Amino acid sequence: MDALTRRLLVIGADAAGMSAASQARRRLGPDDLRIVAFDRGNFSSYSACGIPYFVSGVVDDVESLVVRSPETFRDKQAIQVHLRHEVLEIDLDRGVALVNHSESGHQREEGFDDLVIATGATPVRPPLPGAGAEGVFGVQTLDDGVALRAHVADRKPRRAVIVGSGYVGLEMAESLCALGVETHLVDVAPQPLTRLDPDMGALIAGALRDFGTVLHLGQEVAGFETGAGGEVSAVVTSEGTLPAEVVVLGLGVRPNVALAEAAGVEVGPSGAIAVDRRMRTSYPAVWAAGDCAEKRHRVSGAAVAVALGTHANKEGRVAGINLGGGYATFPGVIGTAATKVGSLEVARTGLGETESADAGFVAESVLSESTTRAGYYPGAGPITVKLVVERGTGRLLGAQIVGREGAAKRIDVLAVAVWNEMTVDELLAADLSYAPPYSPVWDPVVAAARRAVDRLS
Amino acid sequence: MDALTRRLLVIGADAAGMSAASQARRRLGPDDLRIVAFDRGNFSSYSACGIPYFVSGVVDDVESLVVRSPETFRDKQAIQVHLRHEVLEIDLDRGVALVNHSESGHQREEGFDDLVIATGATPVRPPLPGAGAEGVFGVQTLDDGVALRAHVADRKPRRAVIVGSGYVGLEMAESLCALGVETHLVDVAPQPLTRLDPDMGALIAGALRDFGTVLHLGQEVAGFETGAGGEVSAVVTSEGTLPAEVVVLGLGVRPNVALAEAAGVEVGPSGAIAVDRRMRTSYPAVWAAGDCAEKRHRVSGAAVAVALGTHANKEGRVAGINLGGGYATFPGVIGTAATKVGSLEVARTGLGETESADAGFVAESVLSESTTRAGYYPGAGPITVKLVVERGTGRLLGAQIVGREGAAKRIDVLAVAVWNEMTVDELLAADLSYAPPYSPVWDPVVAAARRAVDRLS
Repeated sequence: MDALTRRLLVIGADAAGMSAASQARRRLGPDDLRIVAFDRGNFSSYSACGIPYFVSGVVDDVESLVVRSPETFRDKQAIQVHLRHEVLEIDLDRGVALVNHSESGHQREEGFDDLVIATGATPVRPPLPGAGAEGVFGVQTLDDGVALRAHVADRKPRRAVIVGSGYVGLEMAESLCALGVETHLVDVAPQPLTRLDPDMGALIAGALRDFGTVLHLGQEVAGFETGAGGEVSAVVTSEGTLPAEVVVLGLGVRPNVALAEAAGVEVGPSGAIAVDRRMRTSYPAVWAAGDCAEKRHRVSGAAVAVALGTHANKEGRVAGINLGGGYATFPGVIGTAATKVGSLEVARTGLGETESADAGFVAESVLSESTTRAGYYPGAGPITVKLVVERGTGRLLGAQIVGREGAAKRIDVLAVAVWNEMTVDELLAADLSYAPPYSPVWDPVVAAARRAVDRLS
Repeated sequence: MDALTRRLLVIGADAAGMSAASQARRRLGPDDLRIVAFDRGNFSSYSACGIPYFVSGVVDDVESLVVRSPETFRDKQAIQVHLRHEVLEIDLDRGVALVNHSESGHQREEGFDDLVIATGATPVRPPLPGAGAEGVFGVQTLDDGVALRAHVADRKPRRAVIVGSGYVGLEMAESLCALGVETHLVDVAPQPLTRLDPDMGALIAGALRDFGTVLHLGQEVAGFETGAGGEVSAVVTSEGTLPAEVVVLGLGVRPNVALAEAAGVEVGPSGAIAVDRRMRTSYPAVWAAGDCAEKRHRVSGAAVAVALGTHANKEGRVAGINLGGGYATFPGVIGTAATKVGSLEVARTGLGETESADAGFVAESVLSESTTRAGYYPGAGPITVKLVVERGTGRLLGAQIVGREGAAKRIDVLAVAVWNEMTVDELLAADLSYAPPYSPVWDPVVAAARRAVDRLS
């Protein structure tokens, strides 16, 4: 490296940051671009969505969640990854970051020409007494997962309370039940998983109970009680007190933007870092990607903050291609997501009923019951598909699926349909595959479209 | 019924014919429309794709393949279905069909105002000595399946030969192996399943051998030897003689158009009955649907004959809506299909390499290896995705998938992409679902698109 070598600094060695680094490296060799990444945690480039399965022991080895180690980044790509290093300040005018090594407490300045901000997101902690007590876990990073698993192994809690029934809450409920912990789930909503419409959310309450979760729905959390040592001992709700030796927060996450904001980088209306379609922030040499970066919802048109690994990987790739001199864009999201709740598969895309109304659409919904395979073929299970359809045009605005094995991934068909602004008429006509081991002759997705066409025409 | 009641005659009580009848009935009651259907077989409205699973015993009860019996059609929908009745002639000028009752030999005339032709297709028999011998089966109708299963139960054949390795050939090979019959498969092609490109077809040869099929590839069938009673005893190929007490033809099917053609209804370049997008034939009061009706391939632009239950159901629905006074269209096909070969799932959509070239495209192919679930999640299996992409535009022309459980239905995502003429760039950006039990963070489909983008840009 000499004085002419550009310097890329990546803050956050997660999937987004390291995708950006890798793509930049594909275009620019070590003589043209020096790449250094800092992360305050203990792991680089890991699968965050695998954490619940590591906590439960379905995935036993934490290293199997790590896609690429710092050593591999160094040896294969000449990318320096420094873990346990937190960036405390960024000075964009000087092109310098202040970095703290958490083990030694040593601080140093690191210069850069280009900057990728991939600072991720942090679980929401309610502003309630005891929310920060020992034994109250948010689970977003792999370090969080390791800490929770260690807590369960060391303390052998008898009872757990999950606060909030988003994807992480439900997955953690299942993980803790699998570990033999009596698990209670509290949510202010009357149905679990409010990312689904209530009629679809109601379908999964049974699956949660099947693996042993005790549901406390329609209850607000008022606070957390702690024991003599300051550790959590109970969750207080609007209807009573639930003893717990471990609490997991499943109230969603907030993008980590404080560092960027303090440096003068613009934050958008969603609370995430504003970026253009090439993932460039309000500063030309500064890029953002992943959970900390704002996305455009292609159906509602709104700026949104969504923390998902798929977006993080793609955005990182786009940022890296662009800062490496190429051209790529991230054209937005449509709210696709999937999860497993015991024996049920759950997925959604586009807008739900309320979201459609909020976005100014007038929509009608159609619910369709079918089977995952031909009814006569062994292993066929029930599947419910809901379509949200714009009145008048018949445009598919969104869809939700709850069903047995083979149900969830069907959402991708509907996601591509929503992405292309297809009408239910067009979806009904689309040439989808059929074989008895995989679907009825009217695939559940097509059957739902047919029902929508029959209803709306 | 009085003299003013219109009379609809349906020839063929299969899925296409009975979908048409049902949709017509939804719009017109018995006082407005009398509906009579004739079928020369013993079953109405059944799942033809389930036949291999009935032959193998995976599906035990033949009635479970029947969607709706003649009694139900009569009682619930006032539709008269006459089985074992063959229509011998149609006189379009007089509006009369000559019908033969196969049990009694009694013939009678049946008048009609509207006519739906759903005569289906018949397995191709090679013009070779012995091809019509006893014990040589084509398997297209449920009656064919019943006859084959009875033959296997009665004769307990030691060896079977399958001629041709299309979907039906492969499915019948698996069924016969499951019944303990030593099964040989002969095909002139060097790889099984020529509906796939050779590199993908090669992946399934191992799966065929795994369940016990002996492959004789690159061999032409020269004829069939018969025993003293006229029953088949061996298949003679270009490389030797394969003894067999049962032979199944898997050489594809031809649309049954003789009846329509004799009546003056136009047959298209594909050899199937020409129809417009409303499923109307060259005669305004005559409609055709299902395996006997021509389809437009939306990518190649060609007129094609394709025998698939999905199309049959949709075309019947469209014909029935239109003849009932509504408006619906069938906008064509893109060659989507799926099958199961032992432990492998196989699917395709759009055009393959040779088909693309034949249609005048210049295309490049990309092969991508991935896993059906996150690599660290239990049950993850290999999946290979091939994309055929137009040079210059990046338009996705077709795709093929071979992989373990969870592989096949991913073709639907690609089918909707082909349907919408998406480029691989657009497909890479599309917001698909991700959860470790269902896919890696780069879904195999998206990973293939990414590889195509990297390769072509």
